[in-house]
Amino acid sequence: MTKRVILAYSGGLDTSVAIGWIAEQTGAEVIAVAMDVGQGGENMATIRERALACGAADAEVVDAREEFAADYCLPAIKANALYMNRYDQVRFEVGLASLAPEVTVLAPVRDSGMTRDKAIAFAEEKGLPIDVTHRSPYSIDQNLWGRSCETGHLEDIWEAPHDDVWAYTEDPGVPRDPDGLVLSFADGVPVAIDGVARSPLSIITELNARAGAHGVGRVDMVEDRLVGIKSREIYEAPAAIALIAAHSELESVCMELDLARFKRAVEQRWTELVYDGLWYSPLKRALDAFLAEASRHVTGDVRLRLHGGQAVVTGRRSPVSLYDHGLATYDTGDTFDQGLARGFVELWGLPSKTAALRDQRVGD
Amino acid sequence: MTKRVILAYSGGLDTSVAIGWIAEQTGAEVIAVAMDVGQGGENMATIRERALACGAADAEVVDAREEFAADYCLPAIKANALYMNRYDQVRFEVGLASLAPEVTVLAPVRDSGMTRDKAIAFAEEKGLPIDVTHRSPYSIDQNLWGRSCETGHLEDIWEAPHDDVWAYTEDPGVPRDPDGLVLSFADGVPVAIDGVARSPLSIITELNARAGAHGVGRVDMVEDRLVGIKSREIYEAPAAIALIAAHSELESVCMELDLARFKRAVEQRWTELVYDGLWYSPLKRALDAFLAEASRHVTGDVRLRLHGGQAVVTGRRSPVSLYDHGLATYDTGDTFDQGLARGFVELWGLPSKTAALRDQRVGD
Amino acid sequence: MTKRVILAYSGGLDTSVAIGWIAEQTGAEVIAVAMDVGQGGENMATIRERALACGAADAEVVDAREEFAADYCLPAIKANALYMNRYDQVRFEVGLASLAPEVTVLAPVRDSGMTRDKAIAFAEEKGLPIDVTHRSPYSIDQNLWGRSCETGHLEDIWEAPHDDVWAYTEDPGVPRDPDGLVLSFADGVPVAIDGVARSPLSIITELNARAGAHGVGRVDMVEDRLVGIKSREIYEAPAAIALIAAHSELESVCMELDLARFKRAVEQRWTELVYDGLWYSPLKRALDAFLAEASRHVTGDVRLRLHGGQAVVTGRRSPVSLYDHGLATYDTGDTFDQGLARGFVELWGLPSKTAALRDQRVGD
Amino acid sequence: MTKRVILAYSGGLDTSVAIGWIAEQTGAEVIAVAMDVGQGGENMATIRERALACGAADAEVVDAREEFAADYCLPAIKANALYMNRYDQVRFEVGLASLAPEVTVLAPVRDSGMTRDKAIAFAEEKGLPIDVTHRSPYSIDQNLWGRSCETGHLEDIWEAPHDDVWAYTEDPGVPRDPDGLVLSFADGVPVAIDGVARSPLSIITELNARAGAHGVGRVDMVEDRLVGIKSREIYEAPAAIALIAAHSELESVCMELDLARFKRAVEQRWTELVYDGLWYSPLKRALDAFLAEASRHVTGDVRLRLHGGQAVVTGRRSPVSLYDHGLATYDTGDTFDQGLARGFVELWGLPSKTAALRDQRVGD
Repeated sequence: MTKRVILAYSGGLDTSVAIGWIAEQTGAEVIAVAMDVGQGGENMATIRERALACGAADAEVVDAREEFAADYCLPAIKANALYMNRYDQVRFEVGLASLAPEVTVLAPVRDSGMTRDKAIAFAEEKGLPIDVTHRSPYSIDQNLWGRSCETGHLEDIWEAPHDDVWAYTEDPGVPRDPDGLVLSFADGVPVAIDGVARSPLSIITELNARAGAHGVGRVDMVEDRLVGIKSREIYEAPAAIALIAAHSELESVCMELDLARFKRAVEQRWTELVYDGLWYSPLKRALDAFLAEASRHVTGDVRLRLHGGQAVVTGRRSPVSLYDHGLATYDTGDTFDQGLARGFVELWGLPSKTAALRDQRVGD
Repeated sequence: MTKRVILAYSGGLDTSVAIGWIAEQTGAEVIAVAMDVGQGGENMATIRERALACGAADAEVVDAREEFAADYCLPAIKANALYMNRYDQVRFEVGLASLAPEVTVLAPVRDSGMTRDKAIAFAEEKGLPIDVTHRSPYSIDQNLWGRSCETGHLEDIWEAPHDDVWAYTEDPGVPRDPDGLVLSFADGVPVAIDGVARSPLSIITELNARAGAHGVGRVDMVEDRLVGIKSREIYEAPAAIALIAAHSELESVCMELDLARFKRAVEQRWTELVYDGLWYSPLKRALDAFLAEASRHVTGDVRLRLHGGQAVVTGRRSPVSLYDHGLATYDTGDTFDQGLARGFVELWGLPSKTAALRDQRVGD
Repeated sequence: MTKRVILAYSGGLDTSVAIGWIAEQTGAEVIAVAMDVGQGGENMATIRERALACGAADAEVVDAREEFAADYCLPAIKANALYMNRYDQVRFEVGLASLAPEVTVLAPVRDSGMTRDKAIAFAEEKGLPIDVTHRSPYSIDQNLWGRSCETGHLEDIWEAPHDDVWAYTEDPGVPRDPDGLVLSFADGVPVAIDGVARSPLSIITELNARAGAHGVGRVDMVEDRLVGIKSREIYEAPAAIALIAAHSELESVCMELDLARFKRAVEQRWTELVYDGLWYSPLKRALDAFLAEASRHVTGDVRLRLHGGQAVVTGRRSPVSLYDHGLATYDTGDTFDQGLARGFVELWGLPSKTAALRDQRVGD
Repeated sequence: MTKRVILAYSGGLDTSVAIGWIAEQTGAEVIAVAMDVGQGGENMATIRERALACGAADAEVVDAREEFAADYCLPAIKANALYMNRYDQVRFEVGLASLAPEVTVLAPVRDSGMTRDKAIAFAEEKGLPIDVTHRSPYSIDQNLWGRSCETGHLEDIWEAPHDDVWAYTEDPGVPRDPDGLVLSFADGVPVAIDGVARSPLSIITELNARAGAHGVGRVDMVEDRLVGIKSREIYEAPAAIALIAAHSELESVCMELDLARFKRAVEQRWTELVYDGLWYSPLKRALDAFLAEASRHVTGDVRLRLHGGQAVVTGRRSPVSLYDHGLATYDTGDTFDQGLARGFVELWGLPSKTAALRDQRVGD
């Protein structure tokens, strides 16, 4: 039986060339699979045609946007995580090793020398229906959760980003009237805009448009790649930034202090794991169990103002709030017994005081 | 010998009344000490006169602004910590217990019933030179590092802050031309603006003015007080926000990955300790030792653009950068050996893959 | 209607006196409730009679041993936690505040001056059927999970514990033949001894006897009490120590590395929370969710040798083991591709190497 | 100029063969360097002779025992770390990359196929003065800090270790009279035995003998290697186990609670870094700075009893103790004001209580 290779197909130069390249190198039938995760750009049917024209034995296109929004973006909100779903080799390969450990992975760019120059030569020699002349100066990945952009002039980390690196966001410096909305959350995930129930995909899509229109969600940073090198990246994530701003403030209202403090450590580790390609790892699963329990009662409304590059929380309310108006105020006759504070403060500071007395005694 | 009580004197109603109140209750001489930590407002000499007029046996005013900037604000930059130096009772008392464990602390508001109503009555009865008629609806603390504001309409957490809560920052929504500057850091602390060496106080003062003029540094949040209750606070910290934005980005350039990741945990604990009044605790000292070592080589320049409520990093450069242009680029012939990545990725994912094979075997 | 006070009744001097003391002070009916959590000592029926004889309006005895073993001891095994269930005031009160926040707590020893001297006087005056003459020099708490002992000569922390402090364990220094057994675990909790399925209570009871007979489980330590003071404690926990030794080694076989490393942090925080009286807190619940997920697949057998004060693991096996004989060996032709290690090691060390080159360059 | 290769030479089969193997493969002069880190076995002069006889251009022997004890073992005591200094390839290579990033590393076993079979054939063909007939069934590493043993029957993790795996420790099950001693520490490191000042090397050497004679320090565990596989290891570390038992108990006496709790996280990360070969990494340096500050005042004496495989602390005293006899006792009239506890406990439990009230209200 002929061996089959499943190719994660984007429709671009590299993966179009890979169809024939892999077929030649392995003698296998290549099945191209293209996934719509909200990356925009070409029509998925066009992409499917191109795969077949490039020699794929078969080609499939999958609309995974609802699944991507619900199963991959919402968890990032629970974790207040600003990771970006980049298409790099490490994440693909480590993820696959966990989802389908019995499958062999081929990585032609890395393992069989399919450099960009060779790919262009291959495309021209075979007459593949790919335009190789217009190449962006940037390396770009994008989906409905965000967009990343690197290389080109960005490699000079002293140089400010040129205007042409941005695509999901308008210039925040242009004067406009602010936009406002109320986001509703249930158990840590967004469920409605302005009181109207919406799917995760619908919420993310609308916020990308509305927050992006005010320049919300631009990030310009030097970051550490998993393989140990530093890289300068431009991100745009309007919906993600707005949703996390609202979500984390609602947590402040509904989450108990010790839990909120420990959750910071869980959020950091969760984000590291996802960044490091370990989405399907045992630790990730256990952290998800923590987050699910921690997110119970993160329920309520947050009012956001979108303006000038910022998503600012201007109000929050919750039927399961831990904020107690009576406790918070300081006036005479309030609910909070100031007298209790004396005992608390004395014992709270006792270990430090005992150590200070010791240090004083030994002349430290 | 007559007992002496040192009173931390602000010049306001409560501490002015406390001079006579404590004298009456304890028979002690009250020495008023007023500290200038950049809170602005009245002249320190005026404040000294008032203390004497209210019956203080003696009064001292201390300009602690340089010390406050150098010894209390700079460490917060190293820790990327957005804590605010609030004057609340817990921090005063726990701090004193460590600095001078042999001293007795009096807290008349908490421990001898000096409520606001009684304080006003006392002031009127004694004819103290205090204006008790104009009372702000807010409880406000401020110094050169920031300003906090609470109570009043802010206790309704669904209500947006009124315009009159802001004092250190202009409205970020008003169109203005952006401001730009280059901040220089040495071993984690700011040392110059636009190439001119400056003291910590001078840097903070200038940034409060320039960043504040663009509405940078507004925070509106529900937070957890140490004594276990939630409270809604408005903060303004223009210099702090701008400095930490610049500092943390420079860390991304100069700090190794594992160190940067662990430093997040240290930053969180450091901030909790400071918030919890444990500035002088043994753990704080050990974290400071960590931060001092971690901050070596956080040296270089960061270009900031101040505009529309945001302090945005647009460039960074460092003589001790860990960013390597040659490693970061992806082109054919680059320094980074893509072939090495194969071994790394396979072993990196091996534990997850082994667990996935196990789970598959047991039908999990 | 007459007010009712529920008294947690131990049968000892303090709580026997508290029956009348509380009745006198509050005019309430006192209902004594005694809980059997394996503390041994007197018959529960006798304890019930004494409560009534001391003036209780009613008295209940509850055999909570199975519940205590299953719901309070097993979670401690999952967390590898050596906390002891001490009866101190803080844990009672904080736990109650969470379980029944609407209930008022009375603490006569602390809040209404019921000192030991006054309690003895009260007992004698009222002719209560309590022997107040034979008082242990120690303050002792015990249940089926462990026993703690403090005060007396133990307050001199340089003095070795006298022989009379021990009750659950024999002298480990006496020569005996070793005992051996095989413990089976399912999803992180013990389910069988030597292949025979047993209840949690039965397993703990048998291990207390068998491990205690070999002196396993003695602990002599200075610890930090929640209220900020250090205290010297003697613990005996034969079953706990043996079970945790076996459980943690089985985790080494069945748990993936990253998960195991993060679980250390969760274990520490879990133990702190329990020690600090926060068993019913939101953070504890979220950590329990983490532990439940992490403990899936901690399933298999551990062989223990009990001898000379030690519970030593001598073998472990599991149907869901992650130990792979083929990967672990080093010989020629093994499953593990040594060649992959080169790429891994180079990239693993790359951040440190880059930093070292930087340090060398700047003469650090 | 002829290229020079520095060979880390142990005197065994692999490194003896490597002298000629590397010379043949690279044309370089091979300089053998043998380091005495207390591994015992052959005389260092004999080892030097063998290197020359095997064709080394030159050979050096270095007595690094004092340095190893002072600079590598003492830090492990401060960190309460039970890592073992194993000679594996990863640690060597990552360490070298940081110490001398400009040097090229050769790893003939891994990178040029020098398997054990080929090494034996090479030794026989060249007539090298190595006995290749008596091969231990185990792979063993040892130095003055500990000894590890793996492979052979140990690969069956259900099988108990045979008697012949142990070399540093006697059978703990044999009846003997206990041994006792007093260890003195200054700022976290051991400085004297029974009141006599000693060097780190001398203390470790004596404790290896005395604790080893009572079977102290045996460890049998399944562990996770850095490269992602599980391995079964036998360790013996008599001095390490005894020193860490004493040191950590002295910390309980001299270290403030918050510091002690956070130090647990630092200890774990420190141990992971060392295990993972990152001794010279920036994070390790920053953790060392934390540990140095944390270890100030960990000064005093600990009495140890060595018996039956256990090193048991029976007493501790310190001129800088934080243990306060007056605070720890519970009797009437003690220093600790029980009344303060009420305020502390109420506020301590307030966040959990508020959450419990919320949960009750929403029927959770």
